Amino acid sequence: MKFTVLTLFPEFIKPLLEFSIIKRAIKNKLIEIEIINFRDYSSNKTKRVDEYQIGGGEGMVLQLEPIVKCLKNIEQGYKILLSPQGRVLNQHKLKVLAKKEHIILICGHYEGFDERIQFYVDEEFSIGDYILTNGEIPALIFIDGISRLLNGVIKQDSFKNESFENNLLDYPIYTKPLDFEGYKVPEILLSGNHKKINAFRKEQQIIKTKTKRPDLYKKYLRGRKNEQDGF
Amino acid sequence: MKFTVLTLFPEFIKPLLEFSIIKRAIKNKLIEIEIINFRDYSSNKTKRVDEYQIGGGEGMVLQLEPIVKCLKNIEQGYKILLSPQGRVLNQHKLKVLAKKEHIILICGHYEGFDERIQFYVDEEFSIGDYILTNGEIPALIFIDGISRLLNGVIKQDSFKNESFENNLLDYPIYTKPLDFEGYKVPEILLSGNHKKINAFRKEQQIIKTKTKRPDLYKKYLRGRKNEQDGF
Repeated sequence: MKFTVLTLFPEFIKPLLEFSIIKRAIKNKLIEIEIINFRDYSSNKTKRVDEYQIGGGEGMVLQLEPIVKCLKNIEQGYKILLSPQGRVLNQHKLKVLAKKEHIILICGHYEGFDERIQFYVDEEFSIGDYILTNGEIPALIFIDGISRLLNGVIKQDSFKNESFENNLLDYPIYTKPLDFEGYKVPEILLSGNHKKINAFRKEQQIIKTKTKRPDLYKKYLRGRKNEQDGF
Repeated sequence: MKFTVLTLFPEFIKPLLEFSIIKRAIKNKLIEIEIINFRDYSSNKTKRVDEYQIGGGEGMVLQLEPIVKCLKNIEQGYKILLSPQGRVLNQHKLKVLAKKEHIILICGHYEGFDERIQFYVDEEFSIGDYILTNGEIPALIFIDGISRLLNGVIKQDSFKNESFENNLLDYPIYTKPLDFEGYKVPEILLSGNHKKINAFRKEQQIIKTKTKRPDLYKKYLRGRKNEQDGF
């Protein structure tokens, strides 16, 4: 999988190349990350990329020209615009994107993109219902979230019970010591009875989801109903 | 506002200190960012912080001791655990958090935290329904999203119409050139008639939200109804 990041702040993206699991995935040639400063594509003498809003209003707008020129210079790839106005990312969408060969992530800054950028991208994505000063942090999320799904990046067994599979949160995990300041590990986990442990964990997943994320729990129930109905 | 980040990867967080608006906010003493490697609090000879899961299962679990020791060493602050199992972040919650004086962000790694960490934190937050390899990128989101809300960090006028205010997406913005490869700026924006421009923008906000985010649009309608009913 190749990622190309279009950004005005390459220095902020670079540390990702040295970051834990991503670093190892690059070393093992499972992913490749290319970082392009689209300021280099400005035909302006001072390499300016932003301009005032037409019709009045606060904040500078990113001009189309440097971004579009830069995109045209990259032969292929699935072009994702990062903006709070896009579809909200979720785990299912990450899995769909993980099947692509080349993903281009376009990071905004200032007030945002000229609306006409829509005509030059494949999809517009938001990482959640909140506002940031930049698209660079969202780009990190896409690269990290997609990379870990690729074959060989992390152990496939880790995916089995993780959060959002079947719309349930993960089961609670524990490690040594068995008693920490009076807080104990549930005894059943020490029983060695794997059938009982699995049942306990599934039960905990359901309780946790119902309590912490009633919205997700509803989706889980709907999914189960469809299964029973033979969908 | 002070942020303290508990992480195993300080080198990944540090570039934030040099990043655009955040850099300026630090320079202007509007925010302070402290980075602590909680590996330093491991009493283990080899400074190990992870251990096998009790009851079996893939993936290493972060031990309680180094994190809890580290938290006890920080006098005060609102402790946020970053995990896909927490409440989902949104703009309203960022605004609530922006009123705190000191926020402590605890970043996980590997399979996750020992469940009993719950007893030592104030709130557990997720940035969205997807899985990452780390809690460091979510920490960046909190720092960036909160910082920009603080007085003096960015122009307050920028907040007026931005996405998620009143559950609407932002209106479309445009800049020069008026005609880009045949795609034109809407003529009304050139009229100089601010009343008409504002009406056009509001209409566009509603159309955009209705089309792209029907879930958000429903919230907007509910909000308007409550307003009319005098709530």
